Amino acid sequence: MNEILVREKLIEFLKEDLGTGDITTEGIYRGERAKGVIKAKEKGVLAGSPFVVELFKILGDVKVEFKKREGEEFEKGEILATLEGSARSILIGERTALNILQRLSGIATTTRKFVEKLEGKGIRILDTRKTTPGFRMFEKYAVRIGGGTNHRFALYDMVLIKDNHKKVAGGLREAVRRVRERISPLYRIEVEVESIEELKEALELEVDIVMLDNFSPEEVRKAVKLVNGKALVEVSGNITLENVDLYAVEGVDFISSGSIIHSSRWVDISLKIL
Amino acid sequence: MNEILVREKLIEFLKEDLGTGDITTEGIYRGERAKGVIKAKEKGVLAGSPFVVELFKILGDVKVEFKKREGEEFEKGEILATLEGSARSILIGERTALNILQRLSGIATTTRKFVEKLEGKGIRILDTRKTTPGFRMFEKYAVRIGGGTNHRFALYDMVLIKDNHKKVAGGLREAVRRVRERISPLYRIEVEVESIEELKEALELEVDIVMLDNFSPEEVRKAVKLVNGKALVEVSGNITLENVDLYAVEGVDFISSGSIIHSSRWVDISLKIL
Amino acid sequence: MNEILVREKLIEFLKEDLGTGDITTEGIYRGERAKGVIKAKEKGVLAGSPFVVELFKILGDVKVEFKKREGEEFEKGEILATLEGSARSILIGERTALNILQRLSGIATTTRKFVEKLEGKGIRILDTRKTTPGFRMFEKYAVRIGGGTNHRFALYDMVLIKDNHKKVAGGLREAVRRVRERISPLYRIEVEVESIEELKEALELEVDIVMLDNFSPEEVRKAVKLVNGKALVEVSGNITLENVDLYAVEGVDFISSGSIIHSSRWVDISLKIL
Amino acid sequence: MNEILVREKLIEFLKEDLGTGDITTEGIYRGERAKGVIKAKEKGVLAGSPFVVELFKILGDVKVEFKKREGEEFEKGEILATLEGSARSILIGERTALNILQRLSGIATTTRKFVEKLEGKGIRILDTRKTTPGFRMFEKYAVRIGGGTNHRFALYDMVLIKDNHKKVAGGLREAVRRVRERISPLYRIEVEVESIEELKEALELEVDIVMLDNFSPEEVRKAVKLVNGKALVEVSGNITLENVDLYAVEGVDFISSGSIIHSSRWVDISLKIL
Amino acid sequence: MNEILVREKLIEFLKEDLGTGDITTEGIYRGERAKGVIKAKEKGVLAGSPFVVELFKILGDVKVEFKKREGEEFEKGEILATLEGSARSILIGERTALNILQRLSGIATTTRKFVEKLEGKGIRILDTRKTTPGFRMFEKYAVRIGGGTNHRFALYDMVLIKDNHKKVAGGLREAVRRVRERISPLYRIEVEVESIEELKEALELEVDIVMLDNFSPEEVRKAVKLVNGKALVEVSGNITLENVDLYAVEGVDFISSGSIIHSSRWVDISLKIL
Amino acid sequence: MNEILVREKLIEFLKEDLGTGDITTEGIYRGERAKGVIKAKEKGVLAGSPFVVELFKILGDVKVEFKKREGEEFEKGEILATLEGSARSILIGERTALNILQRLSGIATTTRKFVEKLEGKGIRILDTRKTTPGFRMFEKYAVRIGGGTNHRFALYDMVLIKDNHKKVAGGLREAVRRVRERISPLYRIEVEVESIEELKEALELEVDIVMLDNFSPEEVRKAVKLVNGKALVEVSGNITLENVDLYAVEGVDFISSGSIIHSSRWVDISLKIL
Repeated sequence: MNEILVREKLIEFLKEDLGTGDITTEGIYRGERAKGVIKAKEKGVLAGSPFVVELFKILGDVKVEFKKREGEEFEKGEILATLEGSARSILIGERTALNILQRLSGIATTTRKFVEKLEGKGIRILDTRKTTPGFRMFEKYAVRIGGGTNHRFALYDMVLIKDNHKKVAGGLREAVRRVRERISPLYRIEVEVESIEELKEALELEVDIVMLDNFSPEEVRKAVKLVNGKALVEVSGNITLENVDLYAVEGVDFISSGSIIHSSRWVDISLKIL
Repeated sequence: MNEILVREKLIEFLKEDLGTGDITTEGIYRGERAKGVIKAKEKGVLAGSPFVVELFKILGDVKVEFKKREGEEFEKGEILATLEGSARSILIGERTALNILQRLSGIATTTRKFVEKLEGKGIRILDTRKTTPGFRMFEKYAVRIGGGTNHRFALYDMVLIKDNHKKVAGGLREAVRRVRERISPLYRIEVEVESIEELKEALELEVDIVMLDNFSPEEVRKAVKLVNGKALVEVSGNITLENVDLYAVEGVDFISSGSIIHSSRWVDISLKIL
Repeated sequence: MNEILVREKLIEFLKEDLGTGDITTEGIYRGERAKGVIKAKEKGVLAGSPFVVELFKILGDVKVEFKKREGEEFEKGEILATLEGSARSILIGERTALNILQRLSGIATTTRKFVEKLEGKGIRILDTRKTTPGFRMFEKYAVRIGGGTNHRFALYDMVLIKDNHKKVAGGLREAVRRVRERISPLYRIEVEVESIEELKEALELEVDIVMLDNFSPEEVRKAVKLVNGKALVEVSGNITLENVDLYAVEGVDFISSGSIIHSSRWVDISLKIL
Repeated sequence: MNEILVREKLIEFLKEDLGTGDITTEGIYRGERAKGVIKAKEKGVLAGSPFVVELFKILGDVKVEFKKREGEEFEKGEILATLEGSARSILIGERTALNILQRLSGIATTTRKFVEKLEGKGIRILDTRKTTPGFRMFEKYAVRIGGGTNHRFALYDMVLIKDNHKKVAGGLREAVRRVRERISPLYRIEVEVESIEELKEALELEVDIVMLDNFSPEEVRKAVKLVNGKALVEVSGNITLENVDLYAVEGVDFISSGSIIHSSRWVDISLKIL
Repeated sequence: MNEILVREKLIEFLKEDLGTGDITTEGIYRGERAKGVIKAKEKGVLAGSPFVVELFKILGDVKVEFKKREGEEFEKGEILATLEGSARSILIGERTALNILQRLSGIATTTRKFVEKLEGKGIRILDTRKTTPGFRMFEKYAVRIGGGTNHRFALYDMVLIKDNHKKVAGGLREAVRRVRERISPLYRIEVEVESIEELKEALELEVDIVMLDNFSPEEVRKAVKLVNGKALVEVSGNITLENVDLYAVEGVDFISSGSIIHSSRWVDISLKIL
Repeated sequence: MNEILVREKLIEFLKEDLGTGDITTEGIYRGERAKGVIKAKEKGVLAGSPFVVELFKILGDVKVEFKKREGEEFEKGEILATLEGSARSILIGERTALNILQRLSGIATTTRKFVEKLEGKGIRILDTRKTTPGFRMFEKYAVRIGGGTNHRFALYDMVLIKDNHKKVAGGLREAVRRVRERISPLYRIEVEVESIEELKEALELEVDIVMLDNFSPEEVRKAVKLVNGKALVEVSGNITLENVDLYAVEGVDFISSGSIIHSSRWVDISLKIL
């Protein structure tokens, strides 16, 4: 990640919570030093620890030491990190640090479950652009920590022709033609297809990646045969942890799911001063 | 809300997704006009519509008309809004608009369920500061739309003495004394208490609000009697939609739950060009 | 205070004065080291010293040591601080440092005089929102250093129903009703009243604080009896150092005056290289 | 002035006061329209009206019409402007608008008094860099409106060799030599002199402007004869409205005074909804 | 392009030149309206016109009408655009507008010459990341207008393994292996090769694109045969307008040259008020 | 220069190239340390080294040591600097560092050539405001390093009445009169003149500097006699390295040329990891 952006975002997050000052802590603090622990209150996969370290570096005068590595699993009750330093900085940073850690560990934990379901099948789990506005960089990072793979980061780093684009262009063929006329061929082209018919068209057009949107497992199997290595294959549409293995057909390269980011639960983690 | 901040945030969100440009749309667009609909794919409570309107105003040349009012319930399959204008703006703004709408409607939907459970009992449901970093202003707005009440926005607008503050100050009494020495008495003081003993101490100190943290419903009943109108009473700690009515004891003013924000599911909503 | 905001503001202040560079200093400087003093040219109360320290930290390579503590009184001719380090940084930072120190010490000095007038009466002197745009955070800080108490920081941290609000709502009663309908009860409500009649109405409405606006000392006495502890009492309107003791009636909690900020004179302070 | 910067600053000022929203107005407002007046409560010179107009343009939906022109004198009780439009925008913008108007009209009023004292003598009154950090652009504007002349805006647009520069360079002669070696001759050089001796040296060095610092009126007379048109002459140091005419010696080009900005009182102006 | 970013950049450019205000224009302007023309003083290809239009929209009250379309060639002496409106806005914006137009038209003109040399050969001319810091978005746009194709925008949208990466990883094979282990396979991989040997290795590794760095035309011919469609082929290294056709070998997909951006001359264009 | 602005700009430049992260380096880097050199591939004058040092300080953990001083000439093949530290930082910063160094050294090299042509004649070479938008501060710095002198930085630090200003004001005399009415006499006034007639008028008006625009060498000689020390003299208009000595007439103070910035070629410099 770009540390400059990370630092700017962390400062923005602190300013959101701090505003003109933490009046509780300003009231209470008389120069105390404190020790504290960050503790898991349920099991999960750790994500976000470097941001917590950086956050307390910004606040100053707190030493944070993580006992678990990023991406490592932890059990309920485990100490994830110890803190030592200015009580003021710890009190001020506590909530923002936990909000980052709980959210990102939640995503990493969910992603890990998908990864385990797909283990050994040569299929990667992809995220989507269904992310919390302003927080995508962190959420996509958590997917990687959980073992998932990022789909394009945003609108600028890959061409993905979806349903609405086809409607505007007047069909898949015309949409692909137009993109090739205007956009650098160095960017890959992915095309969302809704049917076997459309898949055939996409293959004729020699696109780089086909996204099988809302195909049944049966249709996925047919599609994969048709593709036969001529494009990368992504399966998409209402994939959940429950049904993901039905779609894990040989020949599929990626299964994508918005839910690994937008529907993952926060992991319960607390910070306690000793 | 402060429209200046809202606009700045929406621009930040668009920049996150757009970066140096939407290469798919730049490729496809040849000046087309388009009509589209925003459609609910499941039932919920609408929140976020003014931001969607403003977002397309920023992108320019799209008329958005919401068919449902902010806070109104909608059914699966209902048209929430119609769009008409530049196909380019619609394609570029689609995902960011939906990310806002799905997330906020999710929070409003969850909040509404809590509100319904508490109906007629004179108890308000409160949110907390467990929010997505950088997105709090919107998440707290959605709570209000769902019928909930916001707890303090951040660290600067109310004093809330929690466990860690007491540890640093060396006890509740000293913490309150210190805050009163330094902080303007115009800000309210709320105190988190862990036991009936501590509640008594808080009442002696004449704080404005007591937060009963992780009290059983039985203890809440005892506490309320003790308080007897001498402070506002907030009940907190692992409250869910399932158990909230157990805590809805007469004399309680607020029940707070981080989960109405951090654990609410996105509502499934799509944007389709016709 | 929020050090992140303070630092951002100090950088903004330096950029205002420095622009694309200090051409006098760029012309003269040949690597010299220098020692200097910050010296009081009249008596006053020190405020702003931590910002001067931070400012020279931003410019780099200057050690600043204050000889007086923040809030301490100094006499004409006293050395307030010594500086030692890069002549370049001292020359570049001199004016901005003094502008902060002179303005804030001026406010602290004025505030201290009010505080001394109210000594032993249990009445606090409050500031208002009549501050220099963009500089409020510092001006309100100086009030605290002088021994005063801050009224609300801005529009977002307390409800204060003033004359114009009542006109829009159609009266005090309706204004209070509307606020209670929409705004979280966790924020206090203060109401400005213009007469004893209106005060009675405010008390019936059980607001938290009443502001007696432009009451004569005689009316203040009557008002205080009526209130009788049912609300906090703020006296406001053309209070000056000359007349403040007339309003210092028992039962009054706060006396507020915009003049402690907007009409305080700069204290004369200079920085001399030795 | 640069309208882009003005607009950015006004937005910054509004954000300072508005934060996450004006909770009083959000509570009260139900779509009302309002008419209001900005009224002088004492006499003065108007400055700041274009910023008030722009401020309400940013807030939206308020028509502001000034009845007095910028720089015009007004009497106690006069209507300076009328407002009509959204009650919400008027309530939200009131305080920031007045803070700008009162501060700037105060400076213009003070400046005008100096200007009147110097009328017909061919001497201009200059401001200095003793300004409120972050607000200089506006304060220097108010000086112009009052009829004064701006000294350099900041450190980047003129060379001004002061006492501390001479100490670092080891004397005036060396300071001027160094500046001429490094800095573009297109920038003027002004030199602060403390004595007739030093003035002679400055004249030998053929600087563009000499600043007579803390000279008595008698010494100013001597100095002016010596200069005899070979440089522009600025008189500086503890000039007040009371003593300014003593320094208004023929041959002086400028009299500068920090006090026209830093010590000018706010003019009392109010905004009333009708 | 992302219009939000474009607008932000244009505002930044105006602020660089305007600072606290254009003192010449502030001095002269008395409300005049003006008509003007933008005129070519030599022949070239137009690029930058939409930014000039937007720039004067930001300054306000000027109608700009371009007589030539973006990408169209113009002759010496031709009127490129007419302006009509506030003389103040025209005077203030003139230099920034021309700086953009002259620089971008210069790049488009150079690019067009390369494109003409490669006409009918099915080879595209690519730019590089050798751009003026902070101005890349505009420079790459001008390449497209001139008929060229953009290489990756920056470090985040394509993998390009160059000499220094190979040295850090310990060879090409290891570099590719590491990238595949960590980076999403949705991003293309391009590899810079220095010799036929290394090209063979790259082909075995099945990378998407090979960059033949500093190959002679003869070596390019050999390389192309080896590649035989198994990867896209980019030729790079000291390509100039003089020698470009020597490298335009069949089978080459792209020729890249930093010089189309960094060494293109400004086209001479002026703005004259009539 | 103002280091605060420099740092902000360098961070902006890095963000332009880095975006959400350098995916090649993220893929390859496994904690390696590296040594590298910055090497000249042709001769030139060094400019930009302090920015390269600061840039790697921002990226962190790289020691950069320049072997040549800023402004010193170097030969083809010379090592300009050595780097040692984190391979990650070196790989990420390489291109941005070189873009700065190549561009600025190019300008310094061109400027030096002009300076050498004017050696011993007491005439300074000036730059203009024809700079790359957003990068002026650096380009003007490179002119100084090359031995040139900066003309005004921007529109705010000197009055320069050009052709278009005269047209708006209705002539030179009126333009000067207006400026003197409104603008502080502390700013110098320069006037562009197109003919000997206009020069005479300018001299009558006692302006500070005259710019002889597009005068032939013969006319320059006449003009200089006329001026005879009553104003500074700048010669301008299509001056190139080839013709500059023709204009180097005794009595001329400055020769200005936009080309030293906008038409200087990048110097070829590379960064190689060893």
